[in-house]
Amino acid sequence: VTLSAAQAVVEAARAKAEEIGVPMNIAVVDEGNNLTAFARMDGAWLGSIDIAKNKAYTARAFDMSTKDLAPLCQPNQPLFGIHASNQGQLIIFAGGIPLEAGGKVVGAVGVSGGSVEADHEVAEAGVAGF
Amino acid sequence: VTLSAAQAVVEAARAKAEEIGVPMNIAVVDEGNNLTAFARMDGAWLGSIDIAKNKAYTARAFDMSTKDLAPLCQPNQPLFGIHASNQGQLIIFAGGIPLEAGGKVVGAVGVSGGSVEADHEVAEAGVAGF
Amino acid sequence: VTLSAAQAVVEAARAKAEEIGVPMNIAVVDEGNNLTAFARMDGAWLGSIDIAKNKAYTARAFDMSTKDLAPLCQPNQPLFGIHASNQGQLIIFAGGIPLEAGGKVVGAVGVSGGSVEADHEVAEAGVAGF
Amino acid sequence: VTLSAAQAVVEAARAKAEEIGVPMNIAVVDEGNNLTAFARMDGAWLGSIDIAKNKAYTARAFDMSTKDLAPLCQPNQPLFGIHASNQGQLIIFAGGIPLEAGGKVVGAVGVSGGSVEADHEVAEAGVAGF
Repeated sequence: VTLSAAQAVVEAARAKAEEIGVPMNIAVVDEGNNLTAFARMDGAWLGSIDIAKNKAYTARAFDMSTKDLAPLCQPNQPLFGIHASNQGQLIIFAGGIPLEAGGKVVGAVGVSGGSVEADHEVAEAGVAGF
Repeated sequence: VTLSAAQAVVEAARAKAEEIGVPMNIAVVDEGNNLTAFARMDGAWLGSIDIAKNKAYTARAFDMSTKDLAPLCQPNQPLFGIHASNQGQLIIFAGGIPLEAGGKVVGAVGVSGGSVEADHEVAEAGVAGF
Repeated sequence: VTLSAAQAVVEAARAKAEEIGVPMNIAVVDEGNNLTAFARMDGAWLGSIDIAKNKAYTARAFDMSTKDLAPLCQPNQPLFGIHASNQGQLIIFAGGIPLEAGGKVVGAVGVSGGSVEADHEVAEAGVAGF
Repeated sequence: VTLSAAQAVVEAARAKAEEIGVPMNIAVVDEGNNLTAFARMDGAWLGSIDIAKNKAYTARAFDMSTKDLAPLCQPNQPLFGIHASNQGQLIIFAGGIPLEAGGKVVGAVGVSGGSVEADHEVAEAGVAGF
């Protein structure tokens, strides 16, 4: 994921966020799970700065969307307790989606600022911009 | 657990992981619960680096497999909340197994990269290589 | 600092970084010292992701450039030891500069990826784009 | 850096450590600065487990050896205070060296367990095994 590609993801996500009227924090990480681009829209939740970055981190960490990861992490499910690992960098609810190229995961986008449904929808728009 | 023994555990686990076709992170800790050997197979989940180490840590921390520990840590069970202790180093799902010699625990192996069933199976192969 | 303004700062800094041929990490925080925009240029040091953010944080934390702060933080100087505060978010060398509007500090830019002189120069270009 | 390549680096470093008679901790990170292989030789300092990993992390973080980084980080030098950044993952003394391929940095090796001179010598042997 180059910076140009990451910024295109951010812009695509931002356009969707504006469309639905919810200010979002949007983050993109690269293949090595390092932050590449970030934008906080005016008025977006401050507590979601960290969450957006961590949703991107989590999606790349396990090469799956945080939406798909979420049910596995609930009480009495296989991965309950996983949120305590990775130095507080895991988020186990929707809004993080891997970015793929050539059949492999090369990064991820994370979105936070609204409902988990809205976050996921905006992240999907980001993926579409990749 | 000497480094040679730890590396033998890693290799046995790796062979099983290759057999089942799931790239894994594999960690071994010694009697003092300190990391002795670690290997991340090509393509293994990045988020599982920490988890593999922590599964080994947890198995030695309580001298039981993390598979056996898991049910005790669910909501309304005796150890609920334990995952918040030990500075984020506990993992409460399957994949960590103690290593025993002469009737006492002398270390542990931790595996992460697939389903908890696959992780546990690969960890068992690691134990068999001890 | 709106997102638009923050992105203009990032772009101005990036143009200067490209001009001098040093890939940089560039961060902008707002009046509340919260991250607003971030970009890692292709090939920029991975360890400077954190440092760029922290230079911006530090410049807003004390409303002065980190270049001006640096000499005060050396051994036997008035603020020696300050780098251990603020949960590891302070950077006490050049590359962070406050953003001002209407005579007050409303945010800051932080740049990391080259020598401290280059970092400061690129940060100044970012300020000029504000 | 594949696991095979990383293990070759570890083995080359270990052979040198045995030659000079100092048990070492040896770590290898990949291009994304994620841990790939680790070995603690029998009797190696426990406190150096973390340091070996962090030396590798630091060398990849700034694409230079920690030996070259060290003088820049002393009091009254340009990068004084940098050790407080990157969540405690930076080590600013010798023993970490980048791994290069095709003219770019693709990972790093970190060694800790003896004097900084010995650590650097063993890390160099690791690089030679790459």
